[in-house]
Amino acid sequence: MIKIILSGANGRMGQVLQTMIAQQAEMQVVAGIDREVFEADFPTYQAIADCQVAADVVIDFSHYSAVPAILDYCVEKKIPVVVATTGLTDEVKAQLVKAAEQTAVFFSANMSLGINLLAKAIRSITPVLEEEFNIEIVEKHHNQKKDSPSGTALLLADAVNEAVEEKKTYIYGRHGNDLENPLSELGIHAVRGGTIPGEHTVIYAGPDEVIELNHLALSRNIFASGAVKAAKYISNKKTGLYDMEKLIDES
Amino acid sequence: MIKIILSGANGRMGQVLQTMIAQQAEMQVVAGIDREVFEADFPTYQAIADCQVAADVVIDFSHYSAVPAILDYCVEKKIPVVVATTGLTDEVKAQLVKAAEQTAVFFSANMSLGINLLAKAIRSITPVLEEEFNIEIVEKHHNQKKDSPSGTALLLADAVNEAVEEKKTYIYGRHGNDLENPLSELGIHAVRGGTIPGEHTVIYAGPDEVIELNHLALSRNIFASGAVKAAKYISNKKTGLYDMEKLIDES
Amino acid sequence: MIKIILSGANGRMGQVLQTMIAQQAEMQVVAGIDREVFEADFPTYQAIADCQVAADVVIDFSHYSAVPAILDYCVEKKIPVVVATTGLTDEVKAQLVKAAEQTAVFFSANMSLGINLLAKAIRSITPVLEEEFNIEIVEKHHNQKKDSPSGTALLLADAVNEAVEEKKTYIYGRHGNDLENPLSELGIHAVRGGTIPGEHTVIYAGPDEVIELNHLALSRNIFASGAVKAAKYISNKKTGLYDMEKLIDES
Amino acid sequence: MIKIILSGANGRMGQVLQTMIAQQAEMQVVAGIDREVFEADFPTYQAIADCQVAADVVIDFSHYSAVPAILDYCVEKKIPVVVATTGLTDEVKAQLVKAAEQTAVFFSANMSLGINLLAKAIRSITPVLEEEFNIEIVEKHHNQKKDSPSGTALLLADAVNEAVEEKKTYIYGRHGNDLENPLSELGIHAVRGGTIPGEHTVIYAGPDEVIELNHLALSRNIFASGAVKAAKYISNKKTGLYDMEKLIDES
Repeated sequence: MIKIILSGANGRMGQVLQTMIAQQAEMQVVAGIDREVFEADFPTYQAIADCQVAADVVIDFSHYSAVPAILDYCVEKKIPVVVATTGLTDEVKAQLVKAAEQTAVFFSANMSLGINLLAKAIRSITPVLEEEFNIEIVEKHHNQKKDSPSGTALLLADAVNEAVEEKKTYIYGRHGNDLENPLSELGIHAVRGGTIPGEHTVIYAGPDEVIELNHLALSRNIFASGAVKAAKYISNKKTGLYDMEKLIDES
Repeated sequence: MIKIILSGANGRMGQVLQTMIAQQAEMQVVAGIDREVFEADFPTYQAIADCQVAADVVIDFSHYSAVPAILDYCVEKKIPVVVATTGLTDEVKAQLVKAAEQTAVFFSANMSLGINLLAKAIRSITPVLEEEFNIEIVEKHHNQKKDSPSGTALLLADAVNEAVEEKKTYIYGRHGNDLENPLSELGIHAVRGGTIPGEHTVIYAGPDEVIELNHLALSRNIFASGAVKAAKYISNKKTGLYDMEKLIDES
Repeated sequence: MIKIILSGANGRMGQVLQTMIAQQAEMQVVAGIDREVFEADFPTYQAIADCQVAADVVIDFSHYSAVPAILDYCVEKKIPVVVATTGLTDEVKAQLVKAAEQTAVFFSANMSLGINLLAKAIRSITPVLEEEFNIEIVEKHHNQKKDSPSGTALLLADAVNEAVEEKKTYIYGRHGNDLENPLSELGIHAVRGGTIPGEHTVIYAGPDEVIELNHLALSRNIFASGAVKAAKYISNKKTGLYDMEKLIDES
Repeated sequence: MIKIILSGANGRMGQVLQTMIAQQAEMQVVAGIDREVFEADFPTYQAIADCQVAADVVIDFSHYSAVPAILDYCVEKKIPVVVATTGLTDEVKAQLVKAAEQTAVFFSANMSLGINLLAKAIRSITPVLEEEFNIEIVEKHHNQKKDSPSGTALLLADAVNEAVEEKKTYIYGRHGNDLENPLSELGIHAVRGGTIPGEHTVIYAGPDEVIELNHLALSRNIFASGAVKAAKYISNKKTGLYDMEKLIDES
């Protein structure tokens, strides 16, 4: 049985995680942390420092400002930690690296299995297509999303760029009457509308053929689901920095 | 038997039209016009004014500068004319309107049946979705295309805008961290790559559902094919300006 | 303010409707019916006959066996009713028609706005394509769905068949080495996997071009959303049978 | 300069190859073989045995019955050979293997770069998804195609099956009211219509996310293009059996 301390337990993703973990035979939430008081079947705390419950993994889905205290706790107690919180500052990211010297730390720019498999497929096929195919990305999200393009679109574009010899320049739209469209451009197109949770398409267009790699998220639960997989994967690791790419390569 | 004078007969689309018309039981090329001398099974001329062959329809797939002479000829001889040449200046367009007072003139911004049916579907469903759905267009074309977005994407965007009460503003990409994505925006996204003849997708994204209307051109022959349909349609018309929208509504 | 009696109020769709109606300024649930006792901000009943609360519309999302009592109630009280329950027997459907002589009755085989707009687009463009284009449907649903193809795929296929002169034969897959693929066949292909709420694509494939009309449901909430629209639409109707097609045509 | 003997030189693919090779700086057709007499810029023969022109590679796009003579010739002259002809019998395939002991022989079930990259992506991501995702294939081809599903769809399905531990059973459509849709089924759905050169989509549908790998052929020229790549790749090989998978892995 893997005992989990859930940080951000009463937030939207925290609640999804409570439900998901309850459905896992070999996993159990033994304590919940949230800055606001809430009721649950397990003991709850407003600060992780107050929690003395023995645990095998901490999953954090809180706020970037809460991450340093989580890391301190996990380093001190030698508990592996899955940091699924987004929007980390460079300072916090540096702290992740340092914490990984003393305990196992799992962090991925995108926690979904599917997106990371798309990145793997990109790394697999891009080098062969580099010289003849234009590569473009179209992503679609709900109209409440403030940032364009999505962080995930950039993650996928970076996966392309790591796989090619001639680095591509990202452009975010096309408008004009005398465009050249060289292979060195990588267009990233952000469609916004309705309540779309997220769709990403990587397009390879070459002579007489087009390959498209597409990922459709039906809900944001895929991030919680990825955190559950990460917790299982990291539960028996001692130290080191882990991410979805490593998890996939070892599965 | 519909007798056709084919203008631009030795150009790329002219050659496609020769083959297509040869496959039509009730249609026949009786003369070909091209600025360069060429050989064919029918009499050929470098200037339409020299052609004295009796005909039922002229199909023009030449160059915008050749259109005025074609129109003069058709007005004088009272022959219906299909102008499938693109890139017409406002001056030539005005001449089309005037010629239509004396003979039947067929002209469409896009000669393909499919694109015009997409526009019809847009007119049909857009008014119901206006208040709750974001509307966006993604188009894909080969990397040799100089203009972005495509004229066809703008034609479809205009079809949207004619169907809504609050006119939308076209934008050609998104990049930023604090975007609002209001319903009043209509994003047009131009993907460029390889040899894609042309694909257009109109996206309606609303609460928990997304409708997409998609048109894929497998070759540019669809423009020739539309011209053949137009020639049949216009062959028994006396005067007036006709287009694909009218052809579709009457079929 | 439109006062709603919600039947099946504590079921999955009933709960979604409670939330949705609470967000509507001009609409309010004044009573809830459910065969099991439950708590709510409004009075609740196990049988509609016991409910004496004045209302403008009844929305029913219960079970086909509960529909006759709902209809009797609405006929007696002259209240418009939206029957969003699925799986109605022919007997119950006949009762709908009869009830519509005395009060306004709204019933659609599919309650989503988007699917009904897809059907409208089908009716709009199919007649023009009948003679040259093959028409096929691909639908995708979660792997727990027992029936294939989906009722909605059949609804869309029927919309095609109502729009053509030569009725098509539905086939549910292809396997062989000597197939003819005539225009008279309409292939309906059911993909099953994961948790896909529902996607339907109507494909028109002709000479050198392909049109696809696609509807993606992101959640089953679209049926609740359609019921809310139906309730508004029917609230001031006296008698008659109404459906999504009429609602769309009048909006 | 790689000197090519082109077998089937006057067939549809042979003519495409003539044009493509003419555009290659380091490649040249030095002789053409076709069972019918034809004119060309290079010497032509009706039987390869009559050809005494020195060459570096033979590309064969003829008919399976012509392949044995091609192989005999290449074995005798020690010339590498690209067999791009389809529909080979088991007997001819056995002969390929034997010929490969004495010269380099290139043969792939599908000669397109893109399809083979899709297979590579399948091998890369399938093992991780096996336990939670349904895998299905949708393919679309023109209505003149007699066989369903396409050989390429089966090639992709086999790529899936080679990557999983529990082999899947192929099914070719779904129709019924009590279907279970287990992970052990791999549905292959054949859409037929118009002039579609070929589209293949591999769908991975799991909890709250869907990955699709899609390949669209815009023309059959991709097979000729693959043959050109194969000729370059094999031109300096001595003996052995080669295919697109090896070509991709080494590029």
